[in-house]
Amino acid sequence: MSNIFVVGIGPGDAVFLTQQARSAMEQADVLCGYTVYIDLVAPLFPEKETYSTPMKKEVDRCRWALETAQCGKTVAMVCSGDAGVYGMAGLILELGADCPDVAIEIVPGVTAALSGAAVLGAPLGHDFCVISLSDLLTPWDRIETRLCCAAEGDFVVCIYNPCSKKRTDTLRRACAVLMEHKSPDTVCGWVRNIGRDGQESRILSLKELADETLDMFTTVFIGSSSTTICSGNMVTPRGYRRP
Amino acid sequence: MSNIFVVGIGPGDAVFLTQQARSAMEQADVLCGYTVYIDLVAPLFPEKETYSTPMKKEVDRCRWALETAQCGKTVAMVCSGDAGVYGMAGLILELGADCPDVAIEIVPGVTAALSGAAVLGAPLGHDFCVISLSDLLTPWDRIETRLCCAAEGDFVVCIYNPCSKKRTDTLRRACAVLMEHKSPDTVCGWVRNIGRDGQESRILSLKELADETLDMFTTVFIGSSSTTICSGNMVTPRGYRRP
Repeated sequence: MSNIFVVGIGPGDAVFLTQQARSAMEQADVLCGYTVYIDLVAPLFPEKETYSTPMKKEVDRCRWALETAQCGKTVAMVCSGDAGVYGMAGLILELGADCPDVAIEIVPGVTAALSGAAVLGAPLGHDFCVISLSDLLTPWDRIETRLCCAAEGDFVVCIYNPCSKKRTDTLRRACAVLMEHKSPDTVCGWVRNIGRDGQESRILSLKELADETLDMFTTVFIGSSSTTICSGNMVTPRGYRRP
Repeated sequence: MSNIFVVGIGPGDAVFLTQQARSAMEQADVLCGYTVYIDLVAPLFPEKETYSTPMKKEVDRCRWALETAQCGKTVAMVCSGDAGVYGMAGLILELGADCPDVAIEIVPGVTAALSGAAVLGAPLGHDFCVISLSDLLTPWDRIETRLCCAAEGDFVVCIYNPCSKKRTDTLRRACAVLMEHKSPDTVCGWVRNIGRDGQESRILSLKELADETLDMFTTVFIGSSSTTICSGNMVTPRGYRRP
């Protein structure tokens, strides 16, 4: 029986690695993943063989990992954040269904919703939604429906992939949808390059957020009606203070 | 300047600790938290002073932590899972607003949505909501509205606190609300005692889930319309296979 670990490495810096993630990569004969993530972890394992592919080559990467495992090598497939949240876990489990001789273990990690929230304060203190604005794989009308429902439910909303080089107006469009149900003064925040060099963050109103120019390395938080700013932190109370 | 670290320790076992969480607890003079979580980490730091309080004493615990920090001790406030997701981060930031001389650092961790998902496969591969069914701090009608909106948006739904000794029918009521919008055949799963002794999990339909008797140590996952069972794993595809 050969093994593939699908490993969430957290936002980037080694301090966010769990012991389980580190040990999975130590056990692996080869680390594979998107070039940027391999570059983040390869220095921790200087002797380790690596295989990296660019973005949008996820299916090829999974097939390579499965074939390599079938040849008897233990593979660690490296994902930023968590292995399953917009990660590779689902795809490799789907493709792996044709390779019953390969054992696939999912190793969770600190996804950007959690690491970004910790930078801003505690925006996820109560019920929340995580929504990706990437319309490469999801039709925009479905994204818009989810934004509407999240706003109607007064969830805190954490947004992944707020924009990209090709899609520069998705965040503005998303904020417009949210403002149909949420106050323009709703407390929001964003964090860029979480846990990496050049980390930046800002707390601002939903109205101001709509005019921000952000990139794909930014995670965005839109508060619920109870989210407040508390000594410069974005906080969504769980409600302990109620009688 | 004295320090409080609010530390997410993950589901329980030390393998889920990040290096950042371990180092925060090493730096601390005292570990404080809910008795059950202190018992999980205290063995890792046998020399360390600890202060534990029962559930529902969160405000007292935060005040104690702030007073102890003001006396010059570094405090690590231990939370299971993540520090901010239904954790103590928000409360201590609120109470800490009156103690400007205490620096509060939030240390994220692997919340049950992520560690539980890894046990089941990859249920959180696309947009999802996290909802607590605890009506101790949230009126049930607000919980019901959120369940409705989550179902209308076809989100994957991860449920925390599905029931308790006092509230035994909340999961059944939640499933009834979800079934107004979702098929009774929707793929669901639950994981109990994640990463602890006696871990159990099951993949089942929404209709079957409504009849399950679960406890407060269980995390529940309700799939979206695209969630499937793939070689015994619960998988929500991100959609890479589309042309």
